[in-house]
Amino acid sequence: MRVEEIARLVGGRVDGDSSLEIQGVASLETAAENDLSFAEGNRGLRRAASSKAGCVMIKQRETIAGRTTLAVEHPKWAFVRAAAALCPPPASNPGIHPTAIIASDARLGAGVTIGPSVVIEGGASVGDGTALGAGVFLGPGVSLGSHCVLYPRVTVYAGVQIGARVIVHAGAVLGSDGFGYVFAEGRHHKFPQLGGLVIEDDVEIGSNSTVDRGSLGTTVIGEGSKIDNLVQIAHNVRIGRHSLVAAQVGISGSAKIGDYVVMGGQAGVGEQARIGNGAMIGGQAGILASKVVPEKSMMWGTPARPLSEFKKMYAHLSRLPELARKVKELSDKLSRATP
Amino acid sequence: MRVEEIARLVGGRVDGDSSLEIQGVASLETAAENDLSFAEGNRGLRRAASSKAGCVMIKQRETIAGRTTLAVEHPKWAFVRAAAALCPPPASNPGIHPTAIIASDARLGAGVTIGPSVVIEGGASVGDGTALGAGVFLGPGVSLGSHCVLYPRVTVYAGVQIGARVIVHAGAVLGSDGFGYVFAEGRHHKFPQLGGLVIEDDVEIGSNSTVDRGSLGTTVIGEGSKIDNLVQIAHNVRIGRHSLVAAQVGISGSAKIGDYVVMGGQAGVGEQARIGNGAMIGGQAGILASKVVPEKSMMWGTPARPLSEFKKMYAHLSRLPELARKVKELSDKLSRATP
Amino acid sequence: MRVEEIARLVGGRVDGDSSLEIQGVASLETAAENDLSFAEGNRGLRRAASSKAGCVMIKQRETIAGRTTLAVEHPKWAFVRAAAALCPPPASNPGIHPTAIIASDARLGAGVTIGPSVVIEGGASVGDGTALGAGVFLGPGVSLGSHCVLYPRVTVYAGVQIGARVIVHAGAVLGSDGFGYVFAEGRHHKFPQLGGLVIEDDVEIGSNSTVDRGSLGTTVIGEGSKIDNLVQIAHNVRIGRHSLVAAQVGISGSAKIGDYVVMGGQAGVGEQARIGNGAMIGGQAGILASKVVPEKSMMWGTPARPLSEFKKMYAHLSRLPELARKVKELSDKLSRATP
Repeated sequence: MRVEEIARLVGGRVDGDSSLEIQGVASLETAAENDLSFAEGNRGLRRAASSKAGCVMIKQRETIAGRTTLAVEHPKWAFVRAAAALCPPPASNPGIHPTAIIASDARLGAGVTIGPSVVIEGGASVGDGTALGAGVFLGPGVSLGSHCVLYPRVTVYAGVQIGARVIVHAGAVLGSDGFGYVFAEGRHHKFPQLGGLVIEDDVEIGSNSTVDRGSLGTTVIGEGSKIDNLVQIAHNVRIGRHSLVAAQVGISGSAKIGDYVVMGGQAGVGEQARIGNGAMIGGQAGILASKVVPEKSMMWGTPARPLSEFKKMYAHLSRLPELARKVKELSDKLSRATP
Repeated sequence: MRVEEIARLVGGRVDGDSSLEIQGVASLETAAENDLSFAEGNRGLRRAASSKAGCVMIKQRETIAGRTTLAVEHPKWAFVRAAAALCPPPASNPGIHPTAIIASDARLGAGVTIGPSVVIEGGASVGDGTALGAGVFLGPGVSLGSHCVLYPRVTVYAGVQIGARVIVHAGAVLGSDGFGYVFAEGRHHKFPQLGGLVIEDDVEIGSNSTVDRGSLGTTVIGEGSKIDNLVQIAHNVRIGRHSLVAAQVGISGSAKIGDYVVMGGQAGVGEQARIGNGAMIGGQAGILASKVVPEKSMMWGTPARPLSEFKKMYAHLSRLPELARKVKELSDKLSRATP
Repeated sequence: MRVEEIARLVGGRVDGDSSLEIQGVASLETAAENDLSFAEGNRGLRRAASSKAGCVMIKQRETIAGRTTLAVEHPKWAFVRAAAALCPPPASNPGIHPTAIIASDARLGAGVTIGPSVVIEGGASVGDGTALGAGVFLGPGVSLGSHCVLYPRVTVYAGVQIGARVIVHAGAVLGSDGFGYVFAEGRHHKFPQLGGLVIEDDVEIGSNSTVDRGSLGTTVIGEGSKIDNLVQIAHNVRIGRHSLVAAQVGISGSAKIGDYVVMGGQAGVGEQARIGNGAMIGGQAGILASKVVPEKSMMWGTPARPLSEFKKMYAHLSRLPELARKVKELSDKLSRATP
């Protein structure tokens, strides 16, 4: 694509050689002459000046002397759209591998790609254009929307409902039993894990993450939410729309996460906690069971508290040795003063 | 089942319409007229009053005006037993899928269910009534008891011994090498990981959890213990009987966990630590290496300390800014008093 | 092997019965008369005295009265080498299982072992003597060196490059998409995850660990580094040579870990952080984003600080209730003194 074509695609203004042929995308550091890149902030602009990139996307009103640039409202977002056009995902090769085991009453949409050793159990349905990697397992009655991609070895338990354009990375397990037991007669008895799991449109789930079905209710991951690798989502959890959950986060049973929430890596949420819309939970933070986190708040620490409070407390904590010394001095001084 | 039949099954007293036909189980919130539910505590009783449930299990001596109730000693436990009768797991369809690869000297019990692409290596044995989901791998010499369920893609390394009625969820890995190296000549050399892994009867292991074999000794998970998703159990660990290990817990090499221990999510246990019987470890707590945690104690924080101590310290921590201000005032006051 | 043969192999001095036949290796506690074991430290020597081991490896200049010993420079390391000779891994059975699906243009080296249901996509290559367990998936263009072992169900995404003698345990996922999105128009848009993943020689990766490919750059795991189970390594991370990463560690995007670094279990590293060579990061520690950790430093806590500082602060923290009481006393005393 020529720079001018990209400009037309994303709606930007070219400064420099608009007829330059762009063949790929790259970071500023690794870009070659036929690569498109993008710059964010002053640091990005400085890096762009010394980058070999053929064309750099920048913010409106920014310039880089002597470089071909494409000025847009939101460079990173324009870059994402240009990259989708320049480097489309390899066309999947629709068809059903002869080693796939598909129940006679499973329904397959048009243009599906079913890899080797895939298993699709009775009553399951797969939407148009969806691709299932090698060894994917869809249990009985699973409903999978259109244009989804399930990478190899994803396991979907019975009855899970998945929307359209959902991406699930390798090894993820969707709809396994929640961790619920009743203690009686000296041992733990399995509480029924009969509920459902609903994954709405445009969700992405990372490698080897686990999402449990509801016990009696339903576990829900809302539209557009993105889940990283090795995340644990317990039974009856509800995650709202467009939330981000970083790697190794654990969300305990019946917790409710709002819309546009951001959770840092390794954070934990206790049972029945509620995280308000737009809240940000810091990495490794621990939200106690039943805690209510207000909308748009930022929390950190275990037990988590508002970030400003945490920072203040932490600063005092760092000065604790000094404080102890000062108390000692005061005590000595007072002893001398009041003999 | 009629309410009176359920009452006979679990041993309770009916108040209301004992001939009502019950078809399923549900939570108080989602129950319909033909569902059984249960109520715990005052909050449960209030919810039950407005529930649509056809019958609610309650404690002896409790009542709910105008509702059909079944009074029992332990409502949740009675509910579990009734649910098992009302909603039995789908009957598995014994048989061996033609795509399974089974060594000629493997021994299969009566009524086993072997799914597609299962691999059973030489010398392995599978007990009566056990079901192996699609793509399960049993290494050479694995011994698997009767009436177990291994969900799809469970991988069991060579020689692991598993008891009866064990449930293992999808993607779990049992018996992989522990993380042991000797540093010499500028690099890490793999220490032998030749030991065993024994999983006793009635254990349940969650999705994508990992349990390493012993290095020279044996890793053991005791009878009736329940392990959640994404848990890591290192080489030579011993977990006692009827313990609960929540999601994303990590237990380091040679740690010893007692009986009836409860570990909260994301907690970590250092090497060689010992957790006494009945201890409770809070979520995200970190038990240091070689630490001895007394029986029945409750621990929290990193490094973990007794919960009461943690709470006291934490309260003081929260008041630290105030304490620092007070010390400043004292200092000023003393300076003025003793010029 | 006779004790004298082992002595010749590892270069040590025998004290006792040098013709004793040794058949296996074991820990001091579990060893039988024909087992080799090793003792480290005074505690090890005491245990060795009461061990049934046929021969115990000890340090030069140490002795154990009445026992056959083999004195070497580094007993544990000598033990590792002797164990490799005494208990070699079961000879793999080179060959290609008939159920493997191998693209016509994939290249397979000499003496490879390809298990059941393995999938090798177009343009992938497998080095001499490498073994792929059941259900391993190699995406298009994957390059896998010689004498590697990939246990069952390992999934390798397109284009990942893996060196020689690499061991990957069951369920690990290599090269999945990183967690990168651009927020625009009220939702998260996937940032291109087009970069590579390079795993150098002699790396070992634990069960169900996940390593993401670069977004635009490359994720690298350096020669000889060892990664435990359930570890998350994000896009563009670089891990140096001979580092150890314990279970459930999470390393965020673009973080750079040096050579000979040791990371304790469940530790977390924020984006863009840099960990200097030889640094040690304590279990559950949290390194903040962009933090620079100096070479050879030891860090602990969240946010992590130097261990000595952490310990000092922690000691003060433990004495906080006492400090508060003392301030109260001073305040009272001062009130009385200055009425």
